[in-house]
Amino acid sequence: MSEGFSFTLHKTDGTARRGTITTGRGEIRTPAFMPVGTAGTVKGLYPEQVCETGADIILGNVYHLMLRPGPEEVAKLGGLHKFANWPRPILTDSGGFQIMSLAKLRKISEKGAVFQSHIDGRKYELTPERSMEIQRLLGSDIQMQLDECLMYPHTDKDAERAMQLSLRWAERSRQAFGKQPGRGNFGIVQGGVNEKLRRLSAEGLTAIGFEGYAIGGLAVGEGQALMLQTIENTAPHLPTDRPRYLMGVGTPEDILEAVARGVDMFDCVMPTRSGRHGQAFTRFGKINLRNARHADDPRPLDPESPCPALSVYSRAYLHHLIRSGELLGMMLLSWANIAYYQSLMQGIRDAIDRGRFEEFRLATKEQWQRGDISA
Amino acid sequence: MSEGFSFTLHKTDGTARRGTITTGRGEIRTPAFMPVGTAGTVKGLYPEQVCETGADIILGNVYHLMLRPGPEEVAKLGGLHKFANWPRPILTDSGGFQIMSLAKLRKISEKGAVFQSHIDGRKYELTPERSMEIQRLLGSDIQMQLDECLMYPHTDKDAERAMQLSLRWAERSRQAFGKQPGRGNFGIVQGGVNEKLRRLSAEGLTAIGFEGYAIGGLAVGEGQALMLQTIENTAPHLPTDRPRYLMGVGTPEDILEAVARGVDMFDCVMPTRSGRHGQAFTRFGKINLRNARHADDPRPLDPESPCPALSVYSRAYLHHLIRSGELLGMMLLSWANIAYYQSLMQGIRDAIDRGRFEEFRLATKEQWQRGDISA
Repeated sequence: MSEGFSFTLHKTDGTARRGTITTGRGEIRTPAFMPVGTAGTVKGLYPEQVCETGADIILGNVYHLMLRPGPEEVAKLGGLHKFANWPRPILTDSGGFQIMSLAKLRKISEKGAVFQSHIDGRKYELTPERSMEIQRLLGSDIQMQLDECLMYPHTDKDAERAMQLSLRWAERSRQAFGKQPGRGNFGIVQGGVNEKLRRLSAEGLTAIGFEGYAIGGLAVGEGQALMLQTIENTAPHLPTDRPRYLMGVGTPEDILEAVARGVDMFDCVMPTRSGRHGQAFTRFGKINLRNARHADDPRPLDPESPCPALSVYSRAYLHHLIRSGELLGMMLLSWANIAYYQSLMQGIRDAIDRGRFEEFRLATKEQWQRGDISA
Repeated sequence: MSEGFSFTLHKTDGTARRGTITTGRGEIRTPAFMPVGTAGTVKGLYPEQVCETGADIILGNVYHLMLRPGPEEVAKLGGLHKFANWPRPILTDSGGFQIMSLAKLRKISEKGAVFQSHIDGRKYELTPERSMEIQRLLGSDIQMQLDECLMYPHTDKDAERAMQLSLRWAERSRQAFGKQPGRGNFGIVQGGVNEKLRRLSAEGLTAIGFEGYAIGGLAVGEGQALMLQTIENTAPHLPTDRPRYLMGVGTPEDILEAVARGVDMFDCVMPTRSGRHGQAFTRFGKINLRNARHADDPRPLDPESPCPALSVYSRAYLHHLIRSGELLGMMLLSWANIAYYQSLMQGIRDAIDRGRFEEFRLATKEQWQRGDISA
């Protein structure tokens, strides 16, 4: 373990885990959802709002920040926390996923990745060492190894090649991370949906030794059943005394099911992206505010929520704002969704604390199913 | 005067006026700037933020709200204040300006205007009576007469025809307004840039008698000099005991100069629209945050401002957000600009109270000129 960085597992309830990650910048209560602040901003929210919803940590993307404004520029301005006015921990991904999903003309070699920016076509190189250097320049509290992430479907041969490459990059990343008191470095399990490859990857990473372990390469088109199966095939091979982070996941239901399988950390663009498109996640399930049925509904999304975006504004008003393309509609629904995700995580943590997670899981899903609109 | 609606002129300083409009929903300190909430939202701001900047009143657009969500729908939902979560007074325009600038295939007759929606091409009719009915349904505190507004340039003949029509519509509007305790009805002076037409219009409206008088048909392409000249030609013909509202104006400098000529109220989309496009209005003049010179500037826009959008976030961060097309960039700069406009109005009011308006006007313009970036 890195000095000043630790994970305490307080309680398990079935396979679900309740813990605390301690970093030099503060504690992260797990299970935790990390709102995504791709380019140094959780889209559509003021940082104070993100704090108030109960988020202990946000995520930043190396890929986006290396293109704009550039890690050296951020470092000169005092680091990402100061730049973005975010006082709590930040996890940065390594850039691997975006190189696969966004960059143009990418070329992966043993050394690293060479790619063209999706913004202006400029050519960049990202090696495991450069990724760690960028994350250090940003001042990230949890720094991810560079990995090669494949889209689904893929052959086992490709999955094995990418997994083995990611394992060698893990070794180089760990080396490059060095000593950074209060900060942690996570390895990323790859191996597609192949049970054996996932096990080998988990064992290889554990042998290197990281402050935490991520399950990567999921939520890339394989579907929920295969994703959950892969988590079940992976989690038992990870050390119990380190946090486990399922990258890029997911819907509230994905999170509930992954927590049930021993996952501690999540991140996803879904609450903000869906919010911008008029979709709300609530205690009563998904609500598409674009739908005409909401046009004359004076009820707020959830009168009992402490978040004004959920408890103050009527569905009719939200419907009007979204249909009119108003910024406030995107702002309110992004805020509402981040608030709901955080209240879901709080509910999960409380339920595990009380040894009632399974009950909570079923009751939550039942309430989503029931909804709150009479047919 | 409508019962429960009044204007008190506290002090004049040269031609500048310091007053209070009292409505059933609260007081409006004048000179006042009204942020524009076209479709029931001041674009990019939470209503609480608009309040906190010191805005006593916002403006809503009849044209937009009649198309979407519709005045009857807003009334069913409890009126515009409740719908938009805005507790203070609202002024609504009559729709005349947008019919001229936005609607398609418009046809003006003695009866009123027939036009097609710019959203879906649907056909609408707006008469003086219907405009007043819509404003009553919305629950507007200050309701404007329907007028015909011409773009500049135009012939004197057209200006006279539109002015005379607007005068006849003023009569019908006043009739339709009826008795609405706590609310006011304003007439609109037209007449292009023709001195005699402006005088005739002002006299005609005064003879009908309104709670306030607007100067319309300016800031439509005539330029600042001609606009100020027209204000000088109009204001002396308006009763001193009623508020004077210059519609759709303007830049901070326009406002300063119009206050110097006896105007009490303003509205303009400029602070929010410019904010969305990366332009800030500050004590130090206009700052275009898109400009590369700001990329590594760690200074906030104005460290002494009580508004976090001006005092907390660095220019480098604002530059980054705007260049990245991030919502937060638009949110922060819209907020900053509304906050600056309101602090300018507070400065104007304080200066008139102290009998120092001319000094304030010169010092403010000098500070804009000086800027805060060394060459």
